[in-house]
Amino acid sequence: MQEVCTVPYSLEPQVFAGSSSREFAERVCSYLGATLGDTTIIRFEEGNTFVKFGQSVRDKEVFIIQTVGVSPNDDFMEVLFWVDAMKRASASSVTVVMPHFSYSKADKKDEPHVSIRARVCADCLEVVNADRVITMDLHSPQVQGFFRIPADNLHALPVLCACVKKIGVTDLVVVAPDAGFAKMARKFATHLGASVAFGDKTRNDHTEKAHVLEIVGDVSGKNVLIVDDFTLTCGTLADTAKAVKARGARRVLAAVSHALLRAKGLRVLSESPIERLIVTDTLDNAGASAHPKISVVSVAPLFAEAIMRIHNRQGLSELFEDAPESVVTECLRGCKP
Amino acid sequence: MQEVCTVPYSLEPQVFAGSSSREFAERVCSYLGATLGDTTIIRFEEGNTFVKFGQSVRDKEVFIIQTVGVSPNDDFMEVLFWVDAMKRASASSVTVVMPHFSYSKADKKDEPHVSIRARVCADCLEVVNADRVITMDLHSPQVQGFFRIPADNLHALPVLCACVKKIGVTDLVVVAPDAGFAKMARKFATHLGASVAFGDKTRNDHTEKAHVLEIVGDVSGKNVLIVDDFTLTCGTLADTAKAVKARGARRVLAAVSHALLRAKGLRVLSESPIERLIVTDTLDNAGASAHPKISVVSVAPLFAEAIMRIHNRQGLSELFEDAPESVVTECLRGCKP
Amino acid sequence: MQEVCTVPYSLEPQVFAGSSSREFAERVCSYLGATLGDTTIIRFEEGNTFVKFGQSVRDKEVFIIQTVGVSPNDDFMEVLFWVDAMKRASASSVTVVMPHFSYSKADKKDEPHVSIRARVCADCLEVVNADRVITMDLHSPQVQGFFRIPADNLHALPVLCACVKKIGVTDLVVVAPDAGFAKMARKFATHLGASVAFGDKTRNDHTEKAHVLEIVGDVSGKNVLIVDDFTLTCGTLADTAKAVKARGARRVLAAVSHALLRAKGLRVLSESPIERLIVTDTLDNAGASAHPKISVVSVAPLFAEAIMRIHNRQGLSELFEDAPESVVTECLRGCKP
Amino acid sequence: MQEVCTVPYSLEPQVFAGSSSREFAERVCSYLGATLGDTTIIRFEEGNTFVKFGQSVRDKEVFIIQTVGVSPNDDFMEVLFWVDAMKRASASSVTVVMPHFSYSKADKKDEPHVSIRARVCADCLEVVNADRVITMDLHSPQVQGFFRIPADNLHALPVLCACVKKIGVTDLVVVAPDAGFAKMARKFATHLGASVAFGDKTRNDHTEKAHVLEIVGDVSGKNVLIVDDFTLTCGTLADTAKAVKARGARRVLAAVSHALLRAKGLRVLSESPIERLIVTDTLDNAGASAHPKISVVSVAPLFAEAIMRIHNRQGLSELFEDAPESVVTECLRGCKP
Amino acid sequence: MQEVCTVPYSLEPQVFAGSSSREFAERVCSYLGATLGDTTIIRFEEGNTFVKFGQSVRDKEVFIIQTVGVSPNDDFMEVLFWVDAMKRASASSVTVVMPHFSYSKADKKDEPHVSIRARVCADCLEVVNADRVITMDLHSPQVQGFFRIPADNLHALPVLCACVKKIGVTDLVVVAPDAGFAKMARKFATHLGASVAFGDKTRNDHTEKAHVLEIVGDVSGKNVLIVDDFTLTCGTLADTAKAVKARGARRVLAAVSHALLRAKGLRVLSESPIERLIVTDTLDNAGASAHPKISVVSVAPLFAEAIMRIHNRQGLSELFEDAPESVVTECLRGCKP
Amino acid sequence: MQEVCTVPYSLEPQVFAGSSSREFAERVCSYLGATLGDTTIIRFEEGNTFVKFGQSVRDKEVFIIQTVGVSPNDDFMEVLFWVDAMKRASASSVTVVMPHFSYSKADKKDEPHVSIRARVCADCLEVVNADRVITMDLHSPQVQGFFRIPADNLHALPVLCACVKKIGVTDLVVVAPDAGFAKMARKFATHLGASVAFGDKTRNDHTEKAHVLEIVGDVSGKNVLIVDDFTLTCGTLADTAKAVKARGARRVLAAVSHALLRAKGLRVLSESPIERLIVTDTLDNAGASAHPKISVVSVAPLFAEAIMRIHNRQGLSELFEDAPESVVTECLRGCKP
Repeated sequence: MQEVCTVPYSLEPQVFAGSSSREFAERVCSYLGATLGDTTIIRFEEGNTFVKFGQSVRDKEVFIIQTVGVSPNDDFMEVLFWVDAMKRASASSVTVVMPHFSYSKADKKDEPHVSIRARVCADCLEVVNADRVITMDLHSPQVQGFFRIPADNLHALPVLCACVKKIGVTDLVVVAPDAGFAKMARKFATHLGASVAFGDKTRNDHTEKAHVLEIVGDVSGKNVLIVDDFTLTCGTLADTAKAVKARGARRVLAAVSHALLRAKGLRVLSESPIERLIVTDTLDNAGASAHPKISVVSVAPLFAEAIMRIHNRQGLSELFEDAPESVVTECLRGCKP
Repeated sequence: MQEVCTVPYSLEPQVFAGSSSREFAERVCSYLGATLGDTTIIRFEEGNTFVKFGQSVRDKEVFIIQTVGVSPNDDFMEVLFWVDAMKRASASSVTVVMPHFSYSKADKKDEPHVSIRARVCADCLEVVNADRVITMDLHSPQVQGFFRIPADNLHALPVLCACVKKIGVTDLVVVAPDAGFAKMARKFATHLGASVAFGDKTRNDHTEKAHVLEIVGDVSGKNVLIVDDFTLTCGTLADTAKAVKARGARRVLAAVSHALLRAKGLRVLSESPIERLIVTDTLDNAGASAHPKISVVSVAPLFAEAIMRIHNRQGLSELFEDAPESVVTECLRGCKP
Repeated sequence: MQEVCTVPYSLEPQVFAGSSSREFAERVCSYLGATLGDTTIIRFEEGNTFVKFGQSVRDKEVFIIQTVGVSPNDDFMEVLFWVDAMKRASASSVTVVMPHFSYSKADKKDEPHVSIRARVCADCLEVVNADRVITMDLHSPQVQGFFRIPADNLHALPVLCACVKKIGVTDLVVVAPDAGFAKMARKFATHLGASVAFGDKTRNDHTEKAHVLEIVGDVSGKNVLIVDDFTLTCGTLADTAKAVKARGARRVLAAVSHALLRAKGLRVLSESPIERLIVTDTLDNAGASAHPKISVVSVAPLFAEAIMRIHNRQGLSELFEDAPESVVTECLRGCKP
Repeated sequence: MQEVCTVPYSLEPQVFAGSSSREFAERVCSYLGATLGDTTIIRFEEGNTFVKFGQSVRDKEVFIIQTVGVSPNDDFMEVLFWVDAMKRASASSVTVVMPHFSYSKADKKDEPHVSIRARVCADCLEVVNADRVITMDLHSPQVQGFFRIPADNLHALPVLCACVKKIGVTDLVVVAPDAGFAKMARKFATHLGASVAFGDKTRNDHTEKAHVLEIVGDVSGKNVLIVDDFTLTCGTLADTAKAVKARGARRVLAAVSHALLRAKGLRVLSESPIERLIVTDTLDNAGASAHPKISVVSVAPLFAEAIMRIHNRQGLSELFEDAPESVVTECLRGCKP
Repeated sequence: MQEVCTVPYSLEPQVFAGSSSREFAERVCSYLGATLGDTTIIRFEEGNTFVKFGQSVRDKEVFIIQTVGVSPNDDFMEVLFWVDAMKRASASSVTVVMPHFSYSKADKKDEPHVSIRARVCADCLEVVNADRVITMDLHSPQVQGFFRIPADNLHALPVLCACVKKIGVTDLVVVAPDAGFAKMARKFATHLGASVAFGDKTRNDHTEKAHVLEIVGDVSGKNVLIVDDFTLTCGTLADTAKAVKARGARRVLAAVSHALLRAKGLRVLSESPIERLIVTDTLDNAGASAHPKISVVSVAPLFAEAIMRIHNRQGLSELFEDAPESVVTECLRGCKP
Repeated sequence: MQEVCTVPYSLEPQVFAGSSSREFAERVCSYLGATLGDTTIIRFEEGNTFVKFGQSVRDKEVFIIQTVGVSPNDDFMEVLFWVDAMKRASASSVTVVMPHFSYSKADKKDEPHVSIRARVCADCLEVVNADRVITMDLHSPQVQGFFRIPADNLHALPVLCACVKKIGVTDLVVVAPDAGFAKMARKFATHLGASVAFGDKTRNDHTEKAHVLEIVGDVSGKNVLIVDDFTLTCGTLADTAKAVKARGARRVLAAVSHALLRAKGLRVLSESPIERLIVTDTLDNAGASAHPKISVVSVAPLFAEAIMRIHNRQGLSELFEDAPESVVTECLRGCKP
């Protein structure tokens, strides 16, 4: 034990970007003051994805950022290859950073003869020896339990609420589009000092297909914030907005974590009674950023903070429910007022 | 390939009872017309649990019924030992039947520095090589995904609703005690053709501890069915009952899947405005059966049907949402009207 | 042991088709006289793949046919979900039939900092508990060893050679496009009673980019069969054909197992000295089938035979090097002469 | 490699106490000069055990001390939850310290149709990703091999012998209660320079139940030390004591590692010819400590020394057979003379 | 479910012999009336072992008999290759029959910095997916717990005792060579209605190397049966025999399960006071069979019986402690009186 | 985080030698300036291999060097025991250094009913928890993919070519003995600026056994370098040498990575037209070193460099195809000119 020296230990975390999160990863590195790792990603003519990185990761703590988003199969297979390449190159640990994890929606057997696809993904990440996962607003918090490795589930709620507060809406009721999201709506309401309601779709007796959207809870004369975990076509948000308007709501805003919106959704949003939709940047989405009704808050500082704390062997617990003031401020910077 | 003969294959499934489900297992065997396997369970003076079964299970399909209930640690360790003993004795498959799985409540990291205990249990069952799990009304359906082995989650809903219908209450609103159970309440409401509401607990400004229980949704002049997955002290049910009464509800009934009720809960129930509490027999509970306000429906026929279909290589899918009429009738037999 | 009865055992294998092999699976079922299983495959608007099958597979031996072809990530994730869905529905075994396994090309670390993607895929199939794999002409036979589960690697060689013989070319030399395929060329040559040669690309001294394609071995005055495991653009085949022509070869034919050819490749083929290209139908490829220079032999009967033997508990060994005459005949039926 | 800094590395090991070893853990921390970690352990009304710790363990080496003693199922499930919570909170390693491991007694299939419960426990500890186990005097040394992770089995023998020497008994014969413990008795005898004998229970011809306890080996005119690994009721010790007395033994002492003794055992001891029983403190046992015939030696310094050496990356080998003089002295401090 | 037929199921178990147990396997097959499977075993010039079998094992229950004996590394690697070859050829189960498992002696860390080699072997058998192990007289019964798969440990005791009884020795004391085997000696003694004693080696004060072999227990005027699990050089047996002779024993016999004896041991036996050594045939050993003092009892019928019961889905429990009379008779047939 | 200190970290890697690589390991240590670890290796009389090391490896990075060579089963089992012993002694990582891995030849199922023995070995190394493998010139590069742990495959090519260059042969053609090695021959040719050819064995029509060895490619008037991965009897090398001589080749040299040569091979070499055979020292082989036609280059410096870089957390990539000049120089030192 007489002969000792210092373990070589790099000062900054090694962050790499997969093909689906290049912009997000740059925002993370900018917050960290770190350099994004050198990578090559090729989609060969025969369809195979090929990945390669350009520097030694031997005994380094590596973070690979790759949202599993609008091409989830390509995004996910790519991340498996990244982890395998890094582990075979003797990285001491590989943390998979998935700002959005699309397959978290597939979290149960809600009918017979189907797959629990989120568990399949979790097992595949473990079989390639990923060491940890960081993600945000899983469709259900139980998906964390699909992983045996540590899986940190960050929340956009404090950042989204900060944006709502900045906009300055009072006399607020938070509305979940359906009963399944009522529990999350309660969390937003508590954070904002608001009351709560939810949409309840029931079948009209005469015609099979027609549904009546009831609002359970009182919205009359109130300002409404509709909340959800993701939106694709803005259909549910718009229907809920019309229903609360019909029941006497005043201003209607909406906030969702993951903006999968494409052209169709942006059009529906334009035509809806929603005056402002607040989303995060977990998916690179130029169309959403440009839409006049949409405010994009960046959660890259929150992920960057998590990465830094992991690298510095500090706990993450204060990042979960109530992110530090300074981080939230950073997240709102540059966000449409 | 010329020489072939018939694989020896026993006509009836081999059902064994752990110490926590002796009565339930007898009801299952009675439905199946099967004989309960011979078992010895000893709690040694030094505290260790010892299990032994009394017949060969070589190449047999074995079912071990053991609720993980009011002594969940003892119940759960015992079931691990059962599975190990049976697999080491070369059972071709071991199905763990847990009518109640207490640790399914512990399904996420809702605060830092805690365990996801339901996943720990799932992994332990897999490490002893259990082949399948059958249970009922997991605290969240995602817990199914904690298992890699097939895990069938039966539902008490059709049986509980059949009992409600038998009692004959009209003009019904189903009330969830809180936002988290609103989605399930919606399922009961759809089954019963009812509307839906939920309890919303908020903090009074002046004193920290006092909570106001709001009811989101309309209950005035309606009959109410409060629903939940389990009850221990009847506290939440009684509070909700009082709140709906205060808002003009007429008759108040309640239905829960798992009756963990002991003396205190029975007393609270007696003193509450609830006129009838419908529960199942997933936990052996003589106290609950004897209480004048409690109707116990037996889900043993539902589990027996599942066991029979597995043994006969038939699908289980029709047992999940809408159990067959004949099975439901069997479940209600002998239930207090 | 007195009470015995017959294990229920279905007469025909349960075959299902994934989205990439619908046509191939129908040919397999037609050979087997079996009905293709009922399936639903949805690509949701947000990008997630959803799969569901429509009948009970409890304790059944299931075969899911899905080539991992031109969209290998979508094809592969889909097959993982199929296996998971079938195992969770208690199939007694699930055999993954991949007529082409695109990622088998990625079978080694030929440079630092890359992934061995074929091993990643093998591990993912095992983590979802697939029981067996059947595939054809893996890029290298060692890929079989990437699986711990049985993985049968069928060979197109006897079928391709039967087609060559039917065409009736004598005085043949089999030419590998490069040294790496020389061993396989030797196998074709032995089967056809031919000699062997290979292409050898070397760098011209003066200019970095120009390559000279040498032919090692004698082709002058001979008929040539160029062989390879797959072709995408026909570039290599065409270059080799020109080189052997330049060295005095007479007729030039080519045979490859997997036809990934699209428009570009078909055009290159048209303009090349190759008079006939023989391929199999491991990839559904209408363009290739219609090309006047291409003969498509079907290996569906070979796969069907393998499935039938597995279902009947017979060995597969005679299917590997020298497929039975009757099966080969079936494979050539309907093939362009 | 130019940029290096020091890995943050805490000076003292992080020691936590489970609910069964609070006192023992405090003695360990006192020896180490370390602070016991902050913990919350709740047994919920419905029976579930809940554990939570109060500080970050990210990248720390954690030691959780929990004897698996008189409530072995509760103790063991609790330790599984501890390990899971700590690993999910990214502890770099978790060492499970079980001063007594009750289920180590269940180390073989001594009859058909039973479980090897010690192996079940070992597998469960591994499935929650425990990194190492430290325990004492396993019922058989082979139980170490039930673990794939490092499992250190400390021995009480040098401490118990030191206490015997302090008492100062000469002309000693070490007596095992039965043939199965003869090998261990030989080790005590070698350590103490004594001879050896053992009890041999045989069946009397006339009545089935009556046993005759023979003593194989000579005890006449000698002082006797009866040794065993644990005692519950003192029954075996008392019977052996009477038998050696009947064969002319002079003073009779006894030494056992694990004192599971409760009221009944203490009474049996009082009435037996044993003048002194030496035990360790692997189980918190106020009753034993207070008994006039019992001397409790503390093995907490031995465990503390092991923890310190692990934390300092030093070998443990000298702790096994012959613990260092200074540690033994510390173990005897405060022990009844 | 309408279409059912009989699962093809072969009437006789498929038994194969590894290179170390050819003779033993033939005795097993002769008892079973089965044909030994066709095998090729090559030791290539470069040293590699190659194994191949000659018939389809698809969906068959296979038994591979291979003692891990005097060349344990060759024997053990060969058995790993057998299991792998059979599982890759889709055997439905592979049972490894190891009449002797030499590495079972290496069952604990009796000193620091060593391997628990028996656990290494158990894990290797499991990693190649062996389904079950049948062996005899493991060095310690705990080694069963090193396996997660079922591992049946047969006992030679009833057969060896039957041989002793046939010889007809009365007034018997069973002597273990040391304290570690005292427990097993007690079992022999109980079976034979004998008393028990053991050898106790202690160091003489004056010279380090000289040991005095004491006999603990009374042997004067008695006939002695020395028992052990294996013998290599007969050294321990001969020393013990001399010591009991010196203490007045009359006839001296010995019985061991595994006869690793080679020339040296046979010579030592000839010169020792042992009049008869009874061994089994778990190791093919022509030298031992020919020795005038050695009686070889065959345990092949016992293994054959186990194989037959497994194949017929019957329990093995009655084979363990008290083998059926008819089987024991078969074991003694042809044994030197 | 206030309290930090330096992790104890040893300055030099801990290198141990297994019994088959004592000389090689000493050369490695000499290059590293490190001391070879203290080891005891016993082959017990009953055949079992026993290993023990003599110093603490707690939290150390350990390298165990053991060629799996002419006694591959003994060599391989020994290495499993080394890894197990080191991991149980809490080494932080164990790297298995196998200069030659004999079973890498068994890398596929080239006929039915055989084992993929290289995969069996890979899985066994992983089941004992080896952390990394370093080896040289695997029979096929795909064998790397048989490991999930990092497996570095070094190449002798640059060192062998450096030796050829030192000898100074111009106008060179590299000849593979058969088509299977043509790809590697191409790599040698590229490195040496040579052309390429290969041997092609075909069957003569009249007699079954006689083979004609053709040389595909031109060797007339050229100097020839025959290359292969290993040689045992020099038979193939000698036959190829005769065939190229018969076709007008001038000087004939040969180079192989692994020299398994024994007396027979050395004699065949002497009598062959090969004027010089260049081999490495991956196998301790005194006979080869002494042969007048053999030049032994040492690859110990290459392995030592790999070990040093791993220990210093540096990438290995530059060691693979083009080893650094200084290392190659070191490898040639002392090699016969």
